[in-house]
Amino acid sequence: MNRVARMLVTSAIAAAAIALLLATAPGRADNAASPIFGVKIPQGYRAFPLIGVSQIPSFGEIRGIVGNVRAVKAYRAGTLPFPDGTVLVKLAWKHVPLDGVEGAFVSGTPTKVQVMVKDAKKFSATGGWGFGSFTDGKPGDVAEHQACFACHDARAGKSRDYVFTRFAR
Amino acid sequence: MNRVARMLVTSAIAAAAIALLLATAPGRADNAASPIFGVKIPQGYRAFPLIGVSQIPSFGEIRGIVGNVRAVKAYRAGTLPFPDGTVLVKLAWKHVPLDGVEGAFVSGTPTKVQVMVKDAKKFSATGGWGFGSFTDGKPGDVAEHQACFACHDARAGKSRDYVFTRFAR
Repeated sequence: MNRVARMLVTSAIAAAAIALLLATAPGRADNAASPIFGVKIPQGYRAFPLIGVSQIPSFGEIRGIVGNVRAVKAYRAGTLPFPDGTVLVKLAWKHVPLDGVEGAFVSGTPTKVQVMVKDAKKFSATGGWGFGSFTDGKPGDVAEHQACFACHDARAGKSRDYVFTRFAR
Repeated sequence: MNRVARMLVTSAIAAAAIALLLATAPGRADNAASPIFGVKIPQGYRAFPLIGVSQIPSFGEIRGIVGNVRAVKAYRAGTLPFPDGTVLVKLAWKHVPLDGVEGAFVSGTPTKVQVMVKDAKKFSATGGWGFGSFTDGKPGDVAEHQACFACHDARAGKSRDYVFTRFAR
């Protein structure tokens, strides 16, 4: 085998390892799609890079927002609006005390997994974003999904392409 | 080009895209190594998968803990102690109010990047872990690094392989 072929094989093995990790990443991904948008929990989302973290103390919640490679590239380049194919996933958990460190809290029981998928044409009525909100892998109802864009529109707005989360340095 | 060759090329391109993302991921990685342990900020850590999130309200901090592929695999398989080559990185930020959502907080100014690297032989005196604590890419002093294992030993303990963070489902 020549050098180029060896390099290709090595790269293919590396890609396969990462692909396997993505494909088999734990999570509650299943085949249920959200109403209105038909958005599913993306396969491998638990292996997506971290975009930022957030908390709403009054909800007793702590969250991690992750994104696919396209999302990370867009954040890093400052691309707005986000390109088609961007996927953002917010993982929310009840915060629970950290065993061993008084005053510290960590992610406990998961509450929701919420997904935003960019497709400017398909989701043109909602700023180009399709939404999915899942509890234990099951999508919420129509009313819950009608509220998604209304809130992102009013509170994040078009200038941020309806996305709350900034990339945490 | 035959099918196998095409597949190898496609895989190589995918691997190259991910490798490029890892290699050029933003962050404060530089060449400075921690005292005592000689641990550096790992290249591409900002593209590592999310392990869990945490907060210490009295510090006004919110954190995200990420890990390399070996770390994620060990968490998923429940492997303890973690295998050599495991890398965990805690990213800490001041929490700041989220513009547009009253009562919500997000990651703001970064405070520290803290690294744990597993090498059972090299770091046998400290539970097999090497530590690095960085502010703006610069490692802290000897005293700071002497405190790492003392605290992980006393508060997380050997039964958790001196690691506080659990994998957030």
